[in-house]
Amino acid sequence: MEPNMEKDVAIAESLALVERSIIAMLGTVDGNGHPNIKAMMNMEHEGLKVVWFSTNTSSKRVAQILQNPKTCVYFVDADQFKGLMLVGTIEVLQDDKSRQRLWRPGCEKYYPLGVTDPDYSVLRFTASWGNYYHGLSNITFDI
Amino acid sequence: MEPNMEKDVAIAESLALVERSIIAMLGTVDGNGHPNIKAMMNMEHEGLKVVWFSTNTSSKRVAQILQNPKTCVYFVDADQFKGLMLVGTIEVLQDDKSRQRLWRPGCEKYYPLGVTDPDYSVLRFTASWGNYYHGLSNITFDI
Repeated sequence: MEPNMEKDVAIAESLALVERSIIAMLGTVDGNGHPNIKAMMNMEHEGLKVVWFSTNTSSKRVAQILQNPKTCVYFVDADQFKGLMLVGTIEVLQDDKSRQRLWRPGCEKYYPLGVTDPDYSVLRFTASWGNYYHGLSNITFDI
Repeated sequence: MEPNMEKDVAIAESLALVERSIIAMLGTVDGNGHPNIKAMMNMEHEGLKVVWFSTNTSSKRVAQILQNPKTCVYFVDADQFKGLMLVGTIEVLQDDKSRQRLWRPGCEKYYPLGVTDPDYSVLRFTASWGNYYHGLSNITFDI
């Protein structure tokens, strides 16, 4: 029940899905070994290899990631029955360059002290493999 | 950065979100300890305690669940910045009653042999706790 599709088609459709997605779902593993999911604003990516997010340093998500960097990022187009899962690891960054890179107008709503707010962290996810599906077809590929 | 909301409001908004969601994201943990996410059709639920899905017995998701039943189910309304995560465990069922319960017109596309197709399984997720957020407010509650 898992017919294949061509890898180059899957990569192209995956990139298009990432480009048009407003949000991405970040999957983490909590201290009890349960998966957790949270919708994140889809801000920036480098192909399918790296996905960047920003979040509050004080959030439960950051605490989980510091304990266990194994994560996944999921993009979905429910209307077209398309989905992309990227699986890999994630880092919590607070260097100036990364913070400036992700800063957007309106970020001060979440980080009142601005780009140097200690509660402002950047997440850099790096994928090792992915799975893309469209309808009943899907393919798993290294990244 | 995590102001509270009233639990009864959160429960009511959570139920409304579940009711109007076409899909739900199912979080599992793979054999390497990475979280995995897959969009599922949102078919049936009992309050916030139990969520039912159907899937192919031969799918990677079923193999993962049989190894590790720790799962989560996530509903999101990206436009309104609302999201509900339910965390708990999931069972794979193939009894007649469960299969009949989840069978819908069109299911034969996925399970050509019909309601007794060996590749047709039902998933019953049972939540132990949840987290609901709306904008910058969120609340965690037992279920």
